[in-house]
Order: sequence, then C-alpha cells, then structure tokens
Amino acid sequence: MARIITAAAAQMGPIARAESRTSCVNRMIEMMREAKSRGVRYMVFPELALTTFFPRWYMEDWKEVETFFERTMPTKETLPLFEKAAEWGIGFYLGYAELTEDGHHYNTSILVNDKGRIVGKYRKVHLPGHSEHEPHRPWQHLEKRYFEPGDLGFPVWRTMGAIHGMAICNDRRWPETYRSMSLQGAEIISLGYNTPDENTSAFEPKHLRNFHNDLVVQASAYQNSCYVIATAKAGIEEGVGMIGGSLIAQPSGEIVAKAQTLEDELVVADLRLDLVQMGKETVFNFAKHRRIEHYGRITSQTGVELPPAGEVEGEDVLSRK
Amino acid sequence: MARIITAAAAQMGPIARAESRTSCVNRMIEMMREAKSRGVRYMVFPELALTTFFPRWYMEDWKEVETFFERTMPTKETLPLFEKAAEWGIGFYLGYAELTEDGHHYNTSILVNDKGRIVGKYRKVHLPGHSEHEPHRPWQHLEKRYFEPGDLGFPVWRTMGAIHGMAICNDRRWPETYRSMSLQGAEIISLGYNTPDENTSAFEPKHLRNFHNDLVVQASAYQNSCYVIATAKAGIEEGVGMIGGSLIAQPSGEIVAKAQTLEDELVVADLRLDLVQMGKETVFNFAKHRRIEHYGRITSQTGVELPPAGEVEGEDVLSRK
Repeated sequence: MARIITAAAAQMGPIARAESRTSCVNRMIEMMREAKSRGVRYMVFPELALTTFFPRWYMEDWKEVETFFERTMPTKETLPLFEKAAEWGIGFYLGYAELTEDGHHYNTSILVNDKGRIVGKYRKVHLPGHSEHEPHRPWQHLEKRYFEPGDLGFPVWRTMGAIHGMAICNDRRWPETYRSMSLQGAEIISLGYNTPDENTSAFEPKHLRNFHNDLVVQASAYQNSCYVIATAKAGIEEGVGMIGGSLIAQPSGEIVAKAQTLEDELVVADLRLDLVQMGKETVFNFAKHRRIEHYGRITSQTGVELPPAGEVEGEDVLSRK
Repeated sequence: MARIITAAAAQMGPIARAESRTSCVNRMIEMMREAKSRGVRYMVFPELALTTFFPRWYMEDWKEVETFFERTMPTKETLPLFEKAAEWGIGFYLGYAELTEDGHHYNTSILVNDKGRIVGKYRKVHLPGHSEHEPHRPWQHLEKRYFEPGDLGFPVWRTMGAIHGMAICNDRRWPETYRSMSLQGAEIISLGYNTPDENTSAFEPKHLRNFHNDLVVQASAYQNSCYVIATAKAGIEEGVGMIGGSLIAQPSGEIVAKAQTLEDELVVADLRLDLVQMGKETVFNFAKHRRIEHYGRITSQTGVELPPAGEVEGEDVLSRK
C-alpha cells in the first residue's frame, strides 16, 4: 500500500516584540484548523515560533533575554496547540527558545505526534552569527550569545508512519546535518527558519538569500533521498525583512510546494514515502557506495588545514623524451 | 591584487569505440588552441577522455578491457597535449583509465600545470553502477567491475595560483567529496563526467538527469565556497545518449558558464578567487561553526542503521493537566 502523508509547512508572518505567546498560538491554531480541513496530518511551524526573532537585539540583562525563553513544554499558553493536535489528529514541529532547569539555553524544536504527545526534541547544532555586540551592523545576530550549541546530536524518530528528523535554520546549509539523519534512514526532515533578507556579515547580493535557501534544501533532499519541509518566519518583523519561501522538496530535489506570501500561509503537499526508497536503494545506497575510509577529515578536524605553502613542483614528464 | 584565473570546461562530444587516442588528443588540442586565443590558463577535460565510455559493455576478456587503459602517463599518443600545455602555458585536468604496474585498475584524473608537469593524481572514490552482467539493462554500467575504488583519498594541490582539488563523475553527488577538499582550503574543484541521459537502475523521469547535475554542483560550490568546473562527455555515443550541460559554478552557487551543445565545446569563465574568501570567512567559517562531536556517524558507519522497530510512544503531556 502506498504510504502517502499529507503535510504542510505552516509559514508565519512577522511576530512583533510585544505580541503575546497566546496570540502566536492562536495564529498557529488557525493554520491547524485550515490544515484539518485540507486533510493535513503533519505540519511544521517555524524556528522560534512563539516570539519575535530576539537575537537581533543586544541585551545586557539576562532577565530580559529570558523573557523570550520557555521553562517547560507545553506551557500554559501553548497547551491548546497540543490539545488541538490530539483532537484533530495532526502532528507538528514547533521551534522555541528553551531554558532548562539547570540553566542552559538552547534553540530547540520538538516533534509532537497526532495524539498530542511529545515524541522528540532537537537542539540547534549550527548556531550562526556572533556572540558580542557589533554596533556596525544594522541589526544583531546574537545566536552565539544567547544559545549554546545543541547537545543532542541529530536523532531520528519513528512516528506517524515515517522516520522523522529535525533541524533548525542554519543547520540546513550544512550537509553534515542531513547526512547524520539519512544514515539513520530519515524519510522526512523538518526545519524552521528565521532568515533576514540581507546578509549583514559581508556584502552579498540580496537575491541570493532565497536562492541559497532553495538550493541547500533541494540538494539535501536529493542527496539524502528524503522529503524536506522548510518553514519560514517571514515578512517585515520589527523593521527587519525576513525571507519567506517556505518549501517542501521531494527526494528528486524538486520543489513540490512553495509559499506565495510573506504572511501566515499553509503550504501543503502529499509526501509519497514510497518515492524515498528509489534513491536509498540505487544512487544513494550508502552501504554500497560510501567510502568512509576517505572521509576522515570530516570528523577529525573542525576547521581548515591548508596544504603546505609553496606551489607543488610536479613531475617533469617532458624531459623524459 | 585581484586573483582572476580564466578557466574552461572543455566538453567533448561522443567518442566512438573505434576512435583512436590520437584522434581524441587532436580534438583536445583543437580546444586548447581555442582556449589559448581566449586567454584561458586552466581547462578541464572529461572523465575517460581518451576512449569511449567502455563500462557500458560487458566484456569477459580482461585483455579486451585493458585496451581501454593507459599503463603510463603521458603515453606516446597523449604527449602532444603536455607539450602544447607547456608551449601555451595552459594547465589541464585529464580523465583516463589507469592500469598500474602492479595490475590495479582505476578511474583516474591528473592535474597538469601550465608547464606541462604532472602536479597531482586522483582516483575515483565513488564508483557507481554494478559489477556483474545485468542483461535486463539496455546497456551496462560496469564501473564496479572494471575499476577498484580510488586509494588516494581527496588530496588538494597548490598550483597555478590556487588550491586545486579533483573529483570524477559520481563523486559529485556526494557531499563528502567536496567537504574533504574544502577542509583543506580547496578553491577550485574540477571534475569530468560521463552520464547517460537515462537511469537504467530504476525509473526516473529523464529531465532529472541534467537537473541533478546542476543541483549537486551548484549546492556544493556554495556549501564549500569554491569554484566547481564540471565537464561532460556528451551526445549520442555508441547509441547511448549522454547529458552535456558542462558548467562552471561560482562560490555563490550560481552558474557562471554553461555548455550550449552536446559537442566539443569550450565553456569559459573568469574565476575570481577573491570571491572564495567571503563564504570561507563568514557563513562557512568551518572553525567557527562546525560541530564535529555530532558528525560521528558520517565516518563511523558506511550504510544506514535504522532506529529500533516500532513507533516512539512519546510523552503524554496532556494528562499532566
């Protein structure tokens, strides 16, 4: 029997700094209601979906920073989302800022099944940006200040009839992210993102921001033979433009669904999980084709190790004559 | 001073089974002559550029197989290419089938500098296809029969003013290939390919063949912040259609030059090596952002290890109320 799961990227428009958790959750429930009417069984909300993208501001006071974090999940304000998930039989991915009991800060996502149960947790591994205030930037990107790198690796979970993995925002640019999960058979990789429509770390033409989003998601879906559901927080948020372009990529690497607005928008596609097998059994049959004996640098060294200075002299084959 | 290297993908049309090495080399020299007139200083010929793509035939007799292999480099027939390279000051990448003195068979490429000296050698790591005769296929893809996996890893070389790496055909679909070289600072990655325009291992719509070629080359140029020069052997070769689409991708992932025919064709672009730095210093600053403590599976396991059978039960958060 064909395994088909109707799924959605639940893109959100901007969230103002003053907007309450309850207001955000109400917006999500509205999209979940639409999802239900369209037969959706699994939906992906953005990264940090309960607040504005607060790493754009430098804050001295950690008390202020922590107003953007959740100490438990579900919270009182998010509980209705879990209840509706159970009532309507819709699973979801939710991104939020996590403050643990012992005081650690993570950029986190959870996977909730169609009974409203928390099945999995992921903590963002690839934190972009910087850790100190950089006043020359028009806005900050202080993820390296407010979060620690995730400590859970890249787990996958069998749930809702598929093998699921999660990633968050900048993780999507790193092939290591997807490979770690496809080595565990991942069929659906979900990720949320908050991506300013301008690169403030160096000059980069603006049209590349959306292009790179599509490019890495599509290539990774193909190279790992899985579906990728990538969901934006989009639009002008507190004066900063954020790319939208939420998309669902199929294992061929082609886009099967794409957002059309920079607002709250449900982007729906059928995931035909049987299509995942073709790549996993042929071109990307890992057991048959991977050669780990030559991949050592990928895990043994973090940064670049340049070859010795000076050009290689080479073998003089002409004077052999 | 801006580092600009004018480079070319030297795409080749089909090579008939009966075509001589000397005829192939003459075609290459013709393209080198054009390259010289256009200020090209480095050019990339295809994989197995001296013969037809012979893994499409099943041959019982290894004596016959070995007629497609070179026992030394340069050979008498290829020497003129090295001489012209030195005379005109043009470096090149050349793919050929290598038979070593001790009887090993590799799908090999060499890097020759603008003085006609052999600077580097690479042996294809990711061999596609199959090792036994599969009569149900319209043609064979017996690379796993005729070649051993490369034993040289993914080295890079400082030569001709840049850090060069090499790959061959199917290697380009594997993110491990590029990452192994960008961890050594690769600025230009060259690769040749022979890719039938139809997948005979499983059903796949034909339009995906070129799409995948572009997708993996573009994504990898971006994710490793380097130039990629990808060169096809193209056109109807011994009755089998081969994709062309030779391309040069810049570190943004965008295509800067693309073949327009399925014939011998020089595809030229300026490589602006200063553009390589932007990615290497910001988004893809490996030392700052990579987290090798979470990448273990990439080098510790070859094939997929599935999670335990049975769905994850999950945490019942609703009954907490």
